Amino acid sequence: MQNIGRRYWAIAEGYIPSKSSFVDRALISHETACILNAGDAAAHVEITVYFADREPVGPYRVTVGPRRTLHLRFNDLEKPATIPRDTDYASLFVSDVPIVVQHTRMDSRSAEVSLLSTIAYAEA
Amino acid sequence: MQNIGRRYWAIAEGYIPSKSSFVDRALISHETACILNAGDAAAHVEITVYFADREPVGPYRVTVGPRRTLHLRFNDLEKPATIPRDTDYASLFVSDVPIVVQHTRMDSRSAEVSLLSTIAYAEA
Amino acid sequence: MQNIGRRYWAIAEGYIPSKSSFVDRALISHETACILNAGDAAAHVEITVYFADREPVGPYRVTVGPRRTLHLRFNDLEKPATIPRDTDYASLFVSDVPIVVQHTRMDSRSAEVSLLSTIAYAEA
Amino acid sequence: MQNIGRRYWAIAEGYIPSKSSFVDRALISHETACILNAGDAAAHVEITVYFADREPVGPYRVTVGPRRTLHLRFNDLEKPATIPRDTDYASLFVSDVPIVVQHTRMDSRSAEVSLLSTIAYAEA
Repeated sequence: MQNIGRRYWAIAEGYIPSKSSFVDRALISHETACILNAGDAAAHVEITVYFADREPVGPYRVTVGPRRTLHLRFNDLEKPATIPRDTDYASLFVSDVPIVVQHTRMDSRSAEVSLLSTIAYAEA
Repeated sequence: MQNIGRRYWAIAEGYIPSKSSFVDRALISHETACILNAGDAAAHVEITVYFADREPVGPYRVTVGPRRTLHLRFNDLEKPATIPRDTDYASLFVSDVPIVVQHTRMDSRSAEVSLLSTIAYAEA
Repeated sequence: MQNIGRRYWAIAEGYIPSKSSFVDRALISHETACILNAGDAAAHVEITVYFADREPVGPYRVTVGPRRTLHLRFNDLEKPATIPRDTDYASLFVSDVPIVVQHTRMDSRSAEVSLLSTIAYAEA
Repeated sequence: MQNIGRRYWAIAEGYIPSKSSFVDRALISHETACILNAGDAAAHVEITVYFADREPVGPYRVTVGPRRTLHLRFNDLEKPATIPRDTDYASLFVSDVPIVVQHTRMDSRSAEVSLLSTIAYAEA
């Protein structure tokens, strides 16, 4: 039961606030795709980012080792392009082995921290 | 793998607070249906809004272009009628092509921002 | 496409804080099961509430009219017994027609409002 | 309809902040796996915890009685090892009978409380 998950995932919500009330990396406004690869082979994941008014950007490529989790910050993505702040986006994940994807935002635009999270959409 | 998603989605929670602690559009209390159309054909989406004590209103019609995301604010819907504030509602989405729908509320009634989000219910 | 949903739903999280920073009903700490009945027949729903250390209580019975949504506050349930505050619980929903269930908590124990929400678990 | 749920569940997000603004146990920063066992047999659950840069730890073993819910705090897990704070993790649940799993974090690092929750990923 180590190959839990699916190969195709989508997160329809995406928005990285440009403002933060803190300078600590942990509390800076950010969005994360938490990826679990419970299997015994490395997961090669290609991520495409969609926007409201222009063509998608990608693929971003990340590898999640066997029996590892990667909490990938969209803020940190650089190649082929950084994700613009204060901009609506969405994302699609294609992996060569089953993975599980959960989406989280920490929003610290205002003085306090606010959080949201949801399991992503998995294609059967 | 570009046609990810389903054609039928439902969001059982719906509530737009009439109050906000901010005037910035980004921080005004709002609810959003984040729609991803990763396919190569435009998605024509019909939305019906349900209430506690009267007949549903709709359809609201939106189009999401191919390879685009639309973060639709329920606050902005006008035809056939605006969504009343401080009122329980729910919503049903029917699309002619597969899409992915995620629900988000930003609630700034009190001094700080609070967020919730969940993937919507997809009919198989 | 009006019979969207499932007949069996579960919410594993349940906790109603006894404290609130506000007296306005909208901002009192509460948990809600948002139920959508998009079909043309009334939904008769039986809810059973589970606890950590004693037998379940129920069924609580609610009816959701055709083409209606009911945002049911667990705080308001009275028969066969009120839900204790500051106590872990979970809930199971059985409906005679398909419905959609989403779970929300507003938590105002501290000075500000905090929110969580998720689609409930639907049995295939 | 008492055997609702699945035997395999995954939570890709995991992060227990080391800081809290409160000393009340209810408001200390914590993450919880809310488990519902609606069936008539005890659920024996084995939990494996995954990290970003080292081998998984586990199994942690918990039992959820018949017709009971257990809101398991990851903070309280001790054997075979405590979960490190301020560290990305993920978790996999294997039960011998069907259960339902929902994930919640209460984050009180900053002065106010913030919450997130989502249904976990269930393997078909």
